[in-house]
Parts: sequence; structure tokens; C-alpha cells
Amino acid sequence: MSPLPLPEPTPAAAPEADRYARGLARLREIDGDAGERVVDSLSAIAPDFARYLIEFPFGDIYSRPALGLREREIATVAALTALGNAAPQLKVHIQAALNVGVSRDEVVETIMQMAVYAGFPAALNGLSAAREVFAAPAAG
Amino acid sequence: MSPLPLPEPTPAAAPEADRYARGLARLREIDGDAGERVVDSLSAIAPDFARYLIEFPFGDIYSRPALGLREREIATVAALTALGNAAPQLKVHIQAALNVGVSRDEVVETIMQMAVYAGFPAALNGLSAAREVFAAPAAG
Amino acid sequence: MSPLPLPEPTPAAAPEADRYARGLARLREIDGDAGERVVDSLSAIAPDFARYLIEFPFGDIYSRPALGLREREIATVAALTALGNAAPQLKVHIQAALNVGVSRDEVVETIMQMAVYAGFPAALNGLSAAREVFAAPAAG
Amino acid sequence: MSPLPLPEPTPAAAPEADRYARGLARLREIDGDAGERVVDSLSAIAPDFARYLIEFPFGDIYSRPALGLREREIATVAALTALGNAAPQLKVHIQAALNVGVSRDEVVETIMQMAVYAGFPAALNGLSAAREVFAAPAAG
Amino acid sequence: MSPLPLPEPTPAAAPEADRYARGLARLREIDGDAGERVVDSLSAIAPDFARYLIEFPFGDIYSRPALGLREREIATVAALTALGNAAPQLKVHIQAALNVGVSRDEVVETIMQMAVYAGFPAALNGLSAAREVFAAPAAG
Amino acid sequence: MSPLPLPEPTPAAAPEADRYARGLARLREIDGDAGERVVDSLSAIAPDFARYLIEFPFGDIYSRPALGLREREIATVAALTALGNAAPQLKVHIQAALNVGVSRDEVVETIMQMAVYAGFPAALNGLSAAREVFAAPAAG
Repeated sequence: MSPLPLPEPTPAAAPEADRYARGLARLREIDGDAGERVVDSLSAIAPDFARYLIEFPFGDIYSRPALGLREREIATVAALTALGNAAPQLKVHIQAALNVGVSRDEVVETIMQMAVYAGFPAALNGLSAAREVFAAPAAG
Repeated sequence: MSPLPLPEPTPAAAPEADRYARGLARLREIDGDAGERVVDSLSAIAPDFARYLIEFPFGDIYSRPALGLREREIATVAALTALGNAAPQLKVHIQAALNVGVSRDEVVETIMQMAVYAGFPAALNGLSAAREVFAAPAAG
Repeated sequence: MSPLPLPEPTPAAAPEADRYARGLARLREIDGDAGERVVDSLSAIAPDFARYLIEFPFGDIYSRPALGLREREIATVAALTALGNAAPQLKVHIQAALNVGVSRDEVVETIMQMAVYAGFPAALNGLSAAREVFAAPAAG
Repeated sequence: MSPLPLPEPTPAAAPEADRYARGLARLREIDGDAGERVVDSLSAIAPDFARYLIEFPFGDIYSRPALGLREREIATVAALTALGNAAPQLKVHIQAALNVGVSRDEVVETIMQMAVYAGFPAALNGLSAAREVFAAPAAG
Repeated sequence: MSPLPLPEPTPAAAPEADRYARGLARLREIDGDAGERVVDSLSAIAPDFARYLIEFPFGDIYSRPALGLREREIATVAALTALGNAAPQLKVHIQAALNVGVSRDEVVETIMQMAVYAGFPAALNGLSAAREVFAAPAAG
Repeated sequence: MSPLPLPEPTPAAAPEADRYARGLARLREIDGDAGERVVDSLSAIAPDFARYLIEFPFGDIYSRPALGLREREIATVAALTALGNAAPQLKVHIQAALNVGVSRDEVVETIMQMAVYAGFPAALNGLSAAREVFAAPAAG
């Protein structure tokens, strides 16, 4: 096996401690208390997974400047509504969408649109999740 | 059964012919030739389904003003990448996203983000679809 | 782009008001009270989605004469059991199947068969939904 | 652990050889040549799986009298269209539906209805599969 | 149609009564009380499905010697975590994994790894299921 | 919002450069040439995603000592077979399983078992993938 030349770590690659700190700040900015509760719930059973959750999704992906946070949360609400098997995370991200400036109407439109791509039951269950989040006392 | 008072058709409800014409214009604006090819492919086997496809997704959903077309296409690219079982439609909507002003970088970011919500294989296959679309001669 | 000749709206295309009225009648015939509760639950968060739900699935699809209602409900119970991520809608359609003349035994057979196509957990969860529906006082 | 009284094998339980013979006859009746090709394709890599495929889905499930073969194939076409990740098996069962007396129109209606439960891409891909099957020279 | 030579039932094929008895013993060994509760829950609505559940998954598949029970349960925990739509069965198999000698750490690692293949929400929900199972008084 | 005390980066947290180097070594050990081809295919469209793929799945997850590589690959083959929408990645991991000491028989058993959890079509398509991998000239 003659190894292909593989990409060198890009200059953007931050030291590990930076990834963690940056991810934690990003998690707090986007998800507020709900994100911290998720991390806290992992402390007994899988503390390393809490670290990965902060580092990869938030320290790496959500910290990239090439897509706005509004667009990122619309994408996530769309995907979780369509997949239809992750209600707790969908609720966290409906709130996160509101936190970063997506309006309630835009959240509802995004979920309604999923009827086209994943069927009416997926959209109906997404709207139920939105109704619960909108009715809850504001987090954070 | 004493029927609940159900919503009257809202004033926004357009006559059927308007829905079709509006949907067809929307389909051409968003999907270009690719949308027409999908409609054409249905003409022999399920012509009414071509009509529904124009009327409901495009005449109803994509014609609602409360969410921008850029956001709608980001939502659709995210959902189809995450579901991972509709490659032809994902390619149509990657092109559609470019058509309505989403940049290539934003398409790539949206797909990469799906690694967080649907796993690395879904994101890898979405990136393959994007590579094909970006390499094709511009449609329409 | 020289547009392909696209299908003219077929003669079957009903005026919008007819679609809504026809869909509402169909919804009541098939789903009974449960359908109205779904519509009612949307009134605050997404009233237009209630309208779409009446118009497209019930006014368009379920109103087509080319497939019997018995067959339509068997198809829906099969699909929702196999997808496994829409328990509330599965329960509505198990009751709907009974409403249009599918027997309890036929519902159970349809769900059991899904073990072959979507695995034993999907079938087990479908049977749990059926047990709940069969045990509930008759709706409507 | 004091074991619950578990169900005795019901009188319907056939000797193993009967299950195999009955399943093989059922497979030939329903799937024709396509079913045999599936079985044949397993002979080198997993011959026991060919046996299970004949015994459980066909010898057990499809041999139960409580649901007609027409209804069973409608249920299977619906489920495989909705799942969207098993194109070869969907094609086999579209042909199987025709073999047991489901009309082409009924197959098309069943697939179109899946737009409601699994989204338009799933229905579009199901219609593509039907177009291929309808265009092929009759099997068997 | 000239029938292909199909595989004769292999010598391993056991008489039906043996499959049931062997499956029941296997079910008790692997799932303990939880397996019996699943079977018992089917007694009123679908007693034959209880029989199939004992015969095919446990009498046939889990009784094959070519893969260890430890590996089988790791495979099942992985698949059910990734599918994300069968929480009750995932919990049964997390306990089953412990019953056949998989350590708690290995269960947690298997679930964490699913973040790579099915996304972080699937892994988070799998870890929640594990936390519940680990906290429950030992079954059986 | 009074922030919960969040986990400090654990001592196991490696500097970024180590993660990359460790992940690359792990990728080569497990996936051989196929892994490098995946990374190479990303170089034009999403080079950072190639880096993430090396760092998180391989540098983080597959480098954890608490689960053997044999068990990890069995888990991955099981999950990708069950999901059924990632054929290219399933083939890479069937070869990877062989690379780390899983036998062909064990791969086949793992895939067959998925008939129980995700249905016969998923298992049949997984067996097709295995047949292709087993027939290819050995990689690497």
C-alpha cells in the first residue's frame, strides 16, 4: 500500500483546549440551558461523550463561519423533523432556532415544508414539538 | 359525533387554476429544467401525480412568503441528506439551492452539518451528490 | 430553457372550495373524531397546515376512486408500522381501518407482516398500538 | 425467575418440512421467477438464509389465511415505497402485486398515497420502480 | 417457468417442536424476564406472533453457533441505537447484552460509536436508554 | 443562567495534532486503501471534512481501548445493514471487519441477524454487499 498524500491539518485546526472552550461557548450561545442539561445528563454514564459533543458539533461544525447560525438551525430543525426519531433533540433545536434569531413563523414554515419531503406525520409531530416549546416559559 | 368547528378555507386559498399556474411558475424558478424533467417523467404513469407535485409542494408550500427561498432550499438539502434515501431528489435540490442564491460553500456546509444529526455516511453521500451537481454543466 | 409542454390541469381538478369540502367529508368518514382532533390541534400553531391536511391527503388522494378505502387503510397501517416513527398517526389509522371495514384480524395480519419488511421491533410496536386502539372505547 | 406460562405451539404449527414446501410453493405463486432468482443468489454466500426466507415470510406469514394475497402485496408495496431503501425488493413486489391480481392502477395509487406518509421523493422513486416493472417483458 | 433447483432443507433444519423449545430456552437465556414479558404481552392480540418471535429470531438466528452471543448482542444494540425508533426493544437488548457478558463499558462504547453512523441524537437517546437499564434493579 | 459546572477536558484529551496522526494511523489499520480513497475523494469539495473524518471517528472513537476493533466493526456492519441507506460505507466496513479479524462467516451471520431487527430486504441487500466485497481482489 503506497499511501496517498493525505491532507495536512489545516491552519484552522485549533489546539484541543481551544476546541473545547470554543465549543462550550458556542453551545451556551445556541442551546442555552438545554444544551447544558444534555451535557450534565451524560456526566455519570459517558463523560467523554459530553466532551465529544462539545468539541465536534459545537467546537468544529457550528463554529465554521461559512454558514450563518440562522441557516444552521433551520437545517437542523428540518433534518430532525424529517428523521422523526429524535423528539428531545428536535425540541432543543426549535428553542435554539429561536435563540439565534429564527422567528416562530419561520420555524413553523420549516416544519410544514417537511410534509413534502418526509410526509404529513413527520410534519405533524414536528408541529407538536414546536407547540410544546413555544408554550414553555422562556429558557435561559 | 358533534363536529368541532373546523377552520374555514382561509382567504389565502386560491382557486385551483391559480394554484397550478403559481406552482408551475415556482417550479420553473426553483428547479429549472430538472423540475420539468421530473414532471415529464410522470406523464405516462401517473399524470395526476405530476399535477399534485406542482400544486401542493410548489403552488402551496414554496409559494408561502413567510420563509425565504434560500432558507427553504437549505432546509430541503439538509432533510434529504439526512434521510439518505432519495439521491435523485437531493441532486435536484442542490441545483435548486444554487438557483435561488445559496452558494456552493453554503451547500457544502449544510451537508457537512448533517454528519452531526444523521452520521458521517449520510454526509459523505450528500457530498458525493454535491460533487456531481457542481461538476455538471449548468442547467437551464 | 424551452419549456416542455406540461400537463394541463385535468378535468378532474376541482375548484379549491370543493377540494376542502370533499376532503373534510372524507376525513370525517375515515378518521372520525380523531381526524377532527388532529385538525383542531393545529388551529393555534399552523391553521393553514390543517387546511392542507384536509385538501391534499383527503380531498385529493383519499378521494380518488381507483383504490378502495379498505386497501388504502391497509397500505397506511403497513407504511406507518414499517416507518416506526409516527405512533400517534398509526393509532389514528388503525381506528380508521376499522372504520372503513378492515377487521381486527386483518389489521393484526398487516402489522405482523411488517416483521418481514421492517423487522420484529417495528411489528411489536405496531401490535402495541393496535392493542391500545382495540381496548379504547369506540370513537365517534 | 418463575417462568410465565408460555404459549404451547399452536395446532397450526406445521412440521418443518411442510413449512419449507409450503413456503416454496407460496414464493413461486407470488413472486414467480424473481423470487427464485433471489433464492438462487443466496446459494453461495448464505444458503441457510435462503431457507429462512422461504420458511418464515412465505411458509409462515404469506400462508396465513386471515388476509388476502392482494391486501398483503398492497401492504408490502406501501411499506417498501415508504421505507425507500430497498429498491430491488420493491420491484419484486410490484410484479408480485400484479401476479396476485392487483391492477397497475391500484399499484400506482398505493405508491402515490405514500407521498402523504413518507413524502414526495419516496413516492417519486416508487413510481420510477413501477415504470421499470411495467415496461419489462412479463416475467415467469 | 422451469424452476431452478432450490436448496433442499439443510440437515441443520430441526423439527418444528425443536425450534420452539430451542428458541424458548434461548430467549430465557438471553433476555430473561423481559423476553417473557414481551411474549406474554402478545398472548391476547397475536399469539401466533409470539410463537414466530420464539422460533425465528431465537430458535433459528440466535441458535446458530457461527457468531458468539456477545457479538450478537453488540450487533443488536448497535442496530437498534442507529435505527432510533424502537426504544423498548433497545432496552431489552441492553439488558440482554449484560446478561451474556458484555460489560457496561462495552455497551456504552457501542452506543457512542453510533454517533458516527447515525448521528449524535441517536447516540444520546441510546445512552438515555442505557442509563435507565443500568439504574433498574437487576432483572430475572 | 447560572451555568452548571461542566466537565473539564479529561486528561485523555490529546492535542489536536495527535488526534489527527492517531486517527490517520487508525484509518489505515482498519480501512486500508478504501479509507484513503474516501479521504482523497473529499480533497476538492470539502477538505476540512476529510480532517474531521480522520479526527472524530478514527482519532477519537475507534482509538478508545474499551471496546475491541472486532466488536467495533461488527457493530458498524450491523448498523449500516440495518439503516440500509449507505451501501458504499457498508462495503468499506465489511472489508474493514475482515481486516481486523472478523471472519467471513461472522460477517454473514451479523448481516443475517439484521433480518430480525430491520427486515429481510435490509439483510438481503447487506448480503449482496458482502458478496461483492468477498469477490473483489483483496485490497491494500
